[in-house]
Amino acid sequence: MLCLKVPTDAAWATAALRDVDAVLVDHAHCEMKAASNALSMATRHLADVELVRAMTDLAREEIEHFQQVLALLVERGVTLGPPPVDAYAAELRRRTSGTHRGQGDAAAVVDRLLVAALIEARSCERFKLLAEAAAPVPEHAALHAFWTELLAAEARHYRTFVDLAERAAGGDRAAVLARLDVLAGVEGALVRELARRGEGASRATIHG
Amino acid sequence: MLCLKVPTDAAWATAALRDVDAVLVDHAHCEMKAASNALSMATRHLADVELVRAMTDLAREEIEHFQQVLALLVERGVTLGPPPVDAYAAELRRRTSGTHRGQGDAAAVVDRLLVAALIEARSCERFKLLAEAAAPVPEHAALHAFWTELLAAEARHYRTFVDLAERAAGGDRAAVLARLDVLAGVEGALVRELARRGEGASRATIHG
Repeated sequence: MLCLKVPTDAAWATAALRDVDAVLVDHAHCEMKAASNALSMATRHLADVELVRAMTDLAREEIEHFQQVLALLVERGVTLGPPPVDAYAAELRRRTSGTHRGQGDAAAVVDRLLVAALIEARSCERFKLLAEAAAPVPEHAALHAFWTELLAAEARHYRTFVDLAERAAGGDRAAVLARLDVLAGVEGALVRELARRGEGASRATIHG
Repeated sequence: MLCLKVPTDAAWATAALRDVDAVLVDHAHCEMKAASNALSMATRHLADVELVRAMTDLAREEIEHFQQVLALLVERGVTLGPPPVDAYAAELRRRTSGTHRGQGDAAAVVDRLLVAALIEARSCERFKLLAEAAAPVPEHAALHAFWTELLAAEARHYRTFVDLAERAAGGDRAAVLARLDVLAGVEGALVRELARRGEGASRATIHG
């Protein structure tokens, strides 16, 4: 799906649906982190108007999604706690940072954008699995609709990040897609590892 | 004005209008910082639904204001650089943090909210001065309208922060207003000091 190399185990969505509250809590944290990350990208590159516009639009949208998840949590009587350590995103950034060493700042920016694209791609895949698993369950009709809407948004964000990476790479789409393929390999290996450690398929998290 | 104890020197707006680009650049940075601060407040207090709703609404609005200022800068051919050190906000937070020591976490939250209220109040005052100074200048008609709109928003944000502080103080409005008075004294002394050092009245900044 999109650029992903390792599909999420089919058992994940079924397990996740057994704890919808946990999925929604994790989802809320993901949206808030995505918003903060988009604002931080904008702040780092204030002179790049196109990137700043895209990142501030994205931040507004992620905050709106956060508010939608929060409303669902309030309805369900669930309270949000502090965000847990996000092993998936932290580890993905760690494993991919510095691998472009010696290729200058532009390569680092391209990588940061492509890692963000990969995170959006993985969210998109997980929301698709959740939407499909929720489809036949009448009590999950509202969640099915919400996740379907969300997966389309994540696919759009994925494309935004890949397009921005192409721009940051001076328009060399082939080079960007080749780099994305390398980083997708790193992401896939990580997802497989987290699932094996029981931090992925067995847990109701959007990532990992 | 609002709770402020030291009015900005009347010369400030006249001086600031001589460098509209610098005012707008500083303003863009202020909006971005306000958005990040609102998101960070929400993230710190995720279990407090009312605060989280208010802070995420605020973040969305501040990002929208940032985008409006960015559009003005693009029109004027001005490029944003990295945010400068914000002596006013940093120093205000430093001078007010820890002054509630021994009074527990709630007092720290009340102070953080009241300091945010003071920053909004100062922005409101400065936008009012800018709007008044721009009013008689035909070429500044659009800026006059923009600043007038903004000063109303800042006054609204000021009230939001004071109301949240009252809630955090268990509804004790009198105690909150007394504390606001103390913190406004600190803020006023700082503004006077920055103006004396030539970092306030002589510079085209929204704060300080």
